[in-house]
Amino acid sequence: MTPTTQYAPAEVIFQRGGLPESRHEVHLAVVDPVGRVLAACGDPALVAFPRSASKPVQALPLALAAPELPLDELAIACASHAGTPAHLAAVESLLARSGSAVADLHCGAHPPFDPQAAADLIRRGEAPTPLHHNCSGKHAGMLLACERHGWPRTGYTEPQHPLQRRIRELHAELAGVPLGAVHIGTDGCSVPALALPLYGAARIFARLAAAEPQGDGLDAALSRVFGAMTAHPDLVAGPGRLDTDLMPLVPGLLTKMGAEAFYGMGLRHSAHGPLGIAFKVLDGGERARPYAALAALEALGMPLTPELLALAPQQQRNWAGRAVGEVVVKLPLHWTAQAGA
Amino acid sequence: MTPTTQYAPAEVIFQRGGLPESRHEVHLAVVDPVGRVLAACGDPALVAFPRSASKPVQALPLALAAPELPLDELAIACASHAGTPAHLAAVESLLARSGSAVADLHCGAHPPFDPQAAADLIRRGEAPTPLHHNCSGKHAGMLLACERHGWPRTGYTEPQHPLQRRIRELHAELAGVPLGAVHIGTDGCSVPALALPLYGAARIFARLAAAEPQGDGLDAALSRVFGAMTAHPDLVAGPGRLDTDLMPLVPGLLTKMGAEAFYGMGLRHSAHGPLGIAFKVLDGGERARPYAALAALEALGMPLTPELLALAPQQQRNWAGRAVGEVVVKLPLHWTAQAGA
Repeated sequence: MTPTTQYAPAEVIFQRGGLPESRHEVHLAVVDPVGRVLAACGDPALVAFPRSASKPVQALPLALAAPELPLDELAIACASHAGTPAHLAAVESLLARSGSAVADLHCGAHPPFDPQAAADLIRRGEAPTPLHHNCSGKHAGMLLACERHGWPRTGYTEPQHPLQRRIRELHAELAGVPLGAVHIGTDGCSVPALALPLYGAARIFARLAAAEPQGDGLDAALSRVFGAMTAHPDLVAGPGRLDTDLMPLVPGLLTKMGAEAFYGMGLRHSAHGPLGIAFKVLDGGERARPYAALAALEALGMPLTPELLALAPQQQRNWAGRAVGEVVVKLPLHWTAQAGA
Repeated sequence: MTPTTQYAPAEVIFQRGGLPESRHEVHLAVVDPVGRVLAACGDPALVAFPRSASKPVQALPLALAAPELPLDELAIACASHAGTPAHLAAVESLLARSGSAVADLHCGAHPPFDPQAAADLIRRGEAPTPLHHNCSGKHAGMLLACERHGWPRTGYTEPQHPLQRRIRELHAELAGVPLGAVHIGTDGCSVPALALPLYGAARIFARLAAAEPQGDGLDAALSRVFGAMTAHPDLVAGPGRLDTDLMPLVPGLLTKMGAEAFYGMGLRHSAHGPLGIAFKVLDGGERARPYAALAALEALGMPLTPELLALAPQQQRNWAGRAVGEVVVKLPLHWTAQAGA
């Protein structure tokens, strides 16, 4: 099942005056829920950090232990939010469920991703708090998961904490890889950042896409996460951000961005049944992500509507609104023998 | 003289938890003032857009026609400034010399690069004007150059305007390439963005580094540009930005950043005499630039002091200040046969 062949990588090329100016290389895997690698670009076994694209898995201990949690609060636990008032309200509500305070969040602080929210903070002369950190919902969810599972809140971000050990086990189980193949680093918000082969990450998203509410405990929890994120795309990212804009345009599509230009997509309906897609822009260039995402969906048979194409504009304009170049995408999706199996 | 061989490219690798997370590929040329390619990484003939690293050449018609211009105003004409009050004052002073107004600047508008200046604008409830555009000094200088040369101000950003034609000719002459090898695109500020082989761009910086004030008209103008930029590194970029921080640490070094991670360096003193260095991070990833710049200087025999190393920290920290990874730089500088000639 482990791919050993490398194919031509995908490329996203930013042209200026008809010449290539900058080039991003993209590696991608398309996997079904049992882990068959159906199609790939580049190296589908590339070991990559999903970063925030791990959030749907990081929220599973919460989804398992708190099945009654409203979907908007489960969505914010899976979010890389932009710090808008609606985002902060959802985080505060989730925090309150475990009797936790902002000071209990170990994520650190950064200005809101949303320019409007960031400017409002500056106008009010306020500094960002851990609440504004894009991962604060995940941390609030982790605190509630600890309470429900009877784990200590102390050290909830440490790799040896029972919550983080469980999250790593869930990555291995859902990805269909040995636990030792899930490497441990540290994320921007201080929880473990896990790394695994692209095909494993893609399988996680295939499992999310295929999950049924009447399934076993884990399947039902996966289904709730899928339902929460697709029902509340506005909470998962924020105004003008890819997950928020893309999910509503494709019924049955769950997407999640990760830092350094990782992307995970779970596609419930395709000619091949539920699929998971994971890709990594090798250099971490986030701007290449919408182009690669749309090209992958198109290669999987989805017609690109004008609304979808608007998420990855081919023509590039400068500060004065003048056309200065084009974006050229090459995504030579290689179908493997397993696609016909 | 045109290199036909490609060497191993340089790499800047961002690691997390001991694993590579993202990788930038860098192509580089080291050239002497007569155009000999002494050393290279990757493809020294890569055609690249210097973008703002063209500004020292774009300021030459001004330097030639206004030899009495104070060095701070010549420096702001060569700058990608950050919109601080000192930057705006220098641009306004330069603008006034040609009796021009902010409305005459065709660069468009964007918020100041300097976070403090951008926040101040938000606090005052003001929108950015063309004065805040990082290229406003260049545009103010172009307006004065037009006046002194007797060229119309109308259409001063158009490729067929005499100013822009002269700038393209100067690129070809200083790079030692045919005019046809200098391709024309459009820049973020609407003037022509020119593209040329890396070795040609490197030769431009070698000419800047080698220029003498008592030389002929062009050499004297190059020398004034070199003197202006190295005397006023604070005006060339801004607080915490690479050109501003790097130039004061290395006597006789002129540097200029260009968008999409282009970099030009003119080194007046080296074991090989004056040198020009030009490199392009293939994917346009700006964060790789300080790492590649320092590695190139070290490969050329410059000891890296703690002050220099602080510009490209090896250890990466997250929002909470926790160490999360390291940056690994591989710059296998290949010395050509011409290096010994």
